[in-house]
Amino acid sequence: MSAATATPLPLSTMASAIRALAMDAVEAAKSGHPGMPMGMADVATVLFTRFLKFDPKNPTWADRDRFVLSAGHGSMLIYSLAFLTGYERMTIEELKRFRQLGSLTPGHPEVDPTLGIEMTTGPLGQGVSTAVGMALAERITNARFGDDLVDHYTYVIASDGDLMEGVSHEACSLAGHLGLNRLIVLWDDNHISIDGSTDLSFTDDTPARFRSYGWNTISVDGHDFAAVEKAIAEARTSTDKPTLIACRTIIGKGAPNKANTHGCHGSPLGADEVAATREAIGWPHEAFVIPQEVLSAWRAAGSRSADAFAAWAGRFGKLDNAQRAAFEQAMGRGVPAGLSEAIAAFKEKVSADKPGWATRVASGNVLEVLVPAVPELVGGSADLTPSNNTKVKNTADVQGKGSFAGRYVRYGVREHGMATLMNGMALHGGIIPYGGTFMQFADYCRPAIRLAALMKTRSIFVMTHDSIGLGEDGPTHQPVEHLAALRAIPNLLVLRPADAVETAECWQIALERVNGPSVLALTRQNVPTLRTEHVAENRSARGGYVLAEADGGRKATILATGSEVSLAMEARKALQAEGIGTAVVSIPSFELFEAQDDAYKAAVLGNGVRVAVEAAIRQGWDRWLGANGGFVGMTGFGESAPYQELYKHFGITAEAVTEAVKARL
Amino acid sequence: MSAATATPLPLSTMASAIRALAMDAVEAAKSGHPGMPMGMADVATVLFTRFLKFDPKNPTWADRDRFVLSAGHGSMLIYSLAFLTGYERMTIEELKRFRQLGSLTPGHPEVDPTLGIEMTTGPLGQGVSTAVGMALAERITNARFGDDLVDHYTYVIASDGDLMEGVSHEACSLAGHLGLNRLIVLWDDNHISIDGSTDLSFTDDTPARFRSYGWNTISVDGHDFAAVEKAIAEARTSTDKPTLIACRTIIGKGAPNKANTHGCHGSPLGADEVAATREAIGWPHEAFVIPQEVLSAWRAAGSRSADAFAAWAGRFGKLDNAQRAAFEQAMGRGVPAGLSEAIAAFKEKVSADKPGWATRVASGNVLEVLVPAVPELVGGSADLTPSNNTKVKNTADVQGKGSFAGRYVRYGVREHGMATLMNGMALHGGIIPYGGTFMQFADYCRPAIRLAALMKTRSIFVMTHDSIGLGEDGPTHQPVEHLAALRAIPNLLVLRPADAVETAECWQIALERVNGPSVLALTRQNVPTLRTEHVAENRSARGGYVLAEADGGRKATILATGSEVSLAMEARKALQAEGIGTAVVSIPSFELFEAQDDAYKAAVLGNGVRVAVEAAIRQGWDRWLGANGGFVGMTGFGESAPYQELYKHFGITAEAVTEAVKARL
Repeated sequence: MSAATATPLPLSTMASAIRALAMDAVEAAKSGHPGMPMGMADVATVLFTRFLKFDPKNPTWADRDRFVLSAGHGSMLIYSLAFLTGYERMTIEELKRFRQLGSLTPGHPEVDPTLGIEMTTGPLGQGVSTAVGMALAERITNARFGDDLVDHYTYVIASDGDLMEGVSHEACSLAGHLGLNRLIVLWDDNHISIDGSTDLSFTDDTPARFRSYGWNTISVDGHDFAAVEKAIAEARTSTDKPTLIACRTIIGKGAPNKANTHGCHGSPLGADEVAATREAIGWPHEAFVIPQEVLSAWRAAGSRSADAFAAWAGRFGKLDNAQRAAFEQAMGRGVPAGLSEAIAAFKEKVSADKPGWATRVASGNVLEVLVPAVPELVGGSADLTPSNNTKVKNTADVQGKGSFAGRYVRYGVREHGMATLMNGMALHGGIIPYGGTFMQFADYCRPAIRLAALMKTRSIFVMTHDSIGLGEDGPTHQPVEHLAALRAIPNLLVLRPADAVETAECWQIALERVNGPSVLALTRQNVPTLRTEHVAENRSARGGYVLAEADGGRKATILATGSEVSLAMEARKALQAEGIGTAVVSIPSFELFEAQDDAYKAAVLGNGVRVAVEAAIRQGWDRWLGANGGFVGMTGFGESAPYQELYKHFGITAEAVTEAVKARL
Repeated sequence: MSAATATPLPLSTMASAIRALAMDAVEAAKSGHPGMPMGMADVATVLFTRFLKFDPKNPTWADRDRFVLSAGHGSMLIYSLAFLTGYERMTIEELKRFRQLGSLTPGHPEVDPTLGIEMTTGPLGQGVSTAVGMALAERITNARFGDDLVDHYTYVIASDGDLMEGVSHEACSLAGHLGLNRLIVLWDDNHISIDGSTDLSFTDDTPARFRSYGWNTISVDGHDFAAVEKAIAEARTSTDKPTLIACRTIIGKGAPNKANTHGCHGSPLGADEVAATREAIGWPHEAFVIPQEVLSAWRAAGSRSADAFAAWAGRFGKLDNAQRAAFEQAMGRGVPAGLSEAIAAFKEKVSADKPGWATRVASGNVLEVLVPAVPELVGGSADLTPSNNTKVKNTADVQGKGSFAGRYVRYGVREHGMATLMNGMALHGGIIPYGGTFMQFADYCRPAIRLAALMKTRSIFVMTHDSIGLGEDGPTHQPVEHLAALRAIPNLLVLRPADAVETAECWQIALERVNGPSVLALTRQNVPTLRTEHVAENRSARGGYVLAEADGGRKATILATGSEVSLAMEARKALQAEGIGTAVVSIPSFELFEAQDDAYKAAVLGNGVRVAVEAAIRQGWDRWLGANGGFVGMTGFGESAPYQELYKHFGITAEAVTEAVKARL
């Protein structure tokens, strides 16, 4: 992959093209961040002309190197590179439409591998941490499919801000522990943040910090092309450690007056400084004009890996049909084969056996079926394995340090890091990640859960201990507002199954949802099996359904989710005994129920009195309750006590539901 | 403070009392975490008998050392110590009621300084990070009030899990940067987590990590009393660095079979092992029985600092009235003096001037008035100072490294760390902390915001750029669900003012709310002044009010918050022009409005058509809208574009509101 023939131009000239496009686009948009692309133009030029394995003509090539611009505010860097290296849709017109509605060049990069954008970045810390997941996925899929098919690097450009964020600690500590030697982080060490010099707030010895995690570190002048090239080459030889390359750079390099100041971080340079920069860097061309020889040099760099792609495609073509199908199934992010049969068999058994399992236990038992059947499933927990029931018998841990054949990741007490790694694995392909923690700690994962929803990754968050049913651990560990807060996130599916049957159905839904993340909200405490008559249909898939119709005309409907559905059933029994026709509606998913047509929803909800019961706050329920509906649930934080006492203490009982119905009749 | 006379018993015997109480209480509760208290009993015994400055008879003594049990699951450690050292309300009966409803001994410690519990802990990482805020508050109040009044240490016991959490990186990095030499963290380095050995997932060189932050580190055998004593003594001599003492311990020490296993982390030892432990540690006493000589020794340790308290009280008594009042005002967490006058004057001026400020700008201008008037206010931003408008002219930064006289903290790109530090400052007393970031990053702060609500701390979170009004930065930076998600947190006040007048009112509300945190949701974009007739009354204090009554009979009510109130006013104008009597209700706070009596709420909401407009999701609005209400807002993520285009693109316009009303008439 010598670039000597491909790039006859000096690298400095090629880098000037990035600087010019970045400052011109920000100028045209009248907003944006020119400083970072200008500062890292030299490093990026070395990476993209000498090392990065990518093919703009085959952008979704499974074995491409992954490149993550963690410092997403420097989006013009990646847009410039996409244009210059020849991603077809990234035209100069799109660069001119930087930060405009409907352009391919929004303020922060939005995931689209066909443009070379592996993930959405912007919220600091997410990029570098998600990239750890990509690098882990590379090693896990390599262990499964071998070097012929999976053998690539993950490169990251990260800013000071990325490394100040806590999630970078979680993910990078784990990357060091696992020895992800294919991960190379280029740190834009420019000493400038929005408030001014990083000396105001950030005086870590960052390389020492990363060495404490078990990383290699290399420090270079980020404007010395040869030094950067040497550093990356060295990093690629690492056998058991990820590498941090500290690239000492000057933010806004090239701008004679604003370089090395926070004035060029997040604002246009201004016409005068743009002109002065053109002069200073020897770039006499008009705005958005890239001379042909520069473009040719960049396009040559963009086609550097075409031979590697062809070779890879040749190896792929020689596989037998089963191997090829397995690889495509894994990387294609489709619905796992055989899923519905496995789920149906499980449902049939448990609806007959009627176990009194906690839904976390039911989930564990579903996984005992799914994990062997779906080789893409890779589980884990943030150090709550015995509580989350996420580990299946007879599966090995992903050990790391060269040994990646397992199916289970020990994430440590790193909920946020876990969620970012899961997103990275889902983005990489080859893996359907699921990971567990207590639902309370959804708060810790929240930025990554939101990003999963925004990026439409199939990340499956297993959140157990989903209410005051947690019991003695008390209010710090009892979710109260978390169901509402999670339901608030667009494109996130929140699933709260009522029993073992619904748990299996919810797992099926989560796995079949190829374009978005799901949360499974599961109980700590035991619940009875309520779905005792087997049906093959996935009833949870409609979000809400009549679990028990009223005897006689329906006068009341009790709506419930999860562990409270059995309370609803008890209340129904009491009400029916008094001759009050009462239906129970289970709503495992608000989002799926909302998506049903009005006639279905109206029929399920009924015209009579409606009362909902959920061991959580009311927010979000009113839409199902109508004008005079009742709600039995929480109004504040929980308490520490055995859970049965808490349900009584907070008045979440069948009696309370019964009374709430009768008060409204 | 020699302890030789106060503790004639061997420290090992005193530590045995902790071990016995911990295992017995967990056994009685049939749940809990005996391993950690047993493992750290020796370290805690050294700290509480030799160093900690505290007086159970005067537990809220302002100059006491602060002790934070970050590893809150080991709550029996702090409960045992509270009983043994003589906090009056912490009786042996309370220890027997461990983890029972209404006891003083819930599963995780809940803030109550009268019991020696400085903060609520349990969610890992929060304790150590909040303690950084306490240590910072100590130095800032020391700079204000001098050594005679403020001169103490902050001690933390932290677990592996605490240090794996990302927030520990943010806070500890900042602690090193600021040189908080009075902060001493005792790390329970026991090599065990819930999943098993920490080697499964955590192989950081933690002391090296902390040195990279600029900390001292000392490593000791946590069961060698003399070594621990020497280490703490050495840590106390540090002049410009915090200290991490890595205490190599054996989890569950004393339990002959379960020590050093994860089997003793989160479960009772069981009767046999409890009996075996009694044997092994030479503790023949019945469960919950502490022999008098042991209790006497502990009580003597608990009264060690009585003289120091008396001396401090003497110094305090010699202050002049003004000095004493200033200190009491600061430490007492009361309502700042002169607040309502300052706010009223500001309101009078802006209602006359009618500026078209963004509410973030209005907030900055309110702070220009408040910060000089309220010396307890200490501001900051997570590296978004110029965007959050949080820094007041002529205030100095808190520099750290011995220079703590400033009023502004540069938190760096550490939103979560900022929020924990703010909580710590509020808990310490002497400071009313406010801190800014983009509202989007409320997600990063969320665990700490929740804990502030649970602990009832007056932490004021300034969240600017509160909607798609952010514009070009796009969906990664545009809050959509955040208002709903924040409103979901119990005891959190979410304030979204409509203009400069409401912004001032909301600041007053937040400052007067001594028992809970507030979020100020503020716009990036300009908004007109709507409250142009000055009234002294704080109208926002009722949460919602009629900003503009209908002309003619009220047929419709438009409900709105923040930047959308001006859209509501435009829609009202259009509707009135068509003869449709329309009122506009501004609802700066759902929580405050909810707390009004039904008659008030009914009068404000009116009987006619109701339509709400908010550039956010609908969740939470239905309770105000009634059966046939309309909502104009967001249904999914935002986009990158100039904000005016986004409002049009998403149909959040006066026209849409007008149509929504007319469709319902």
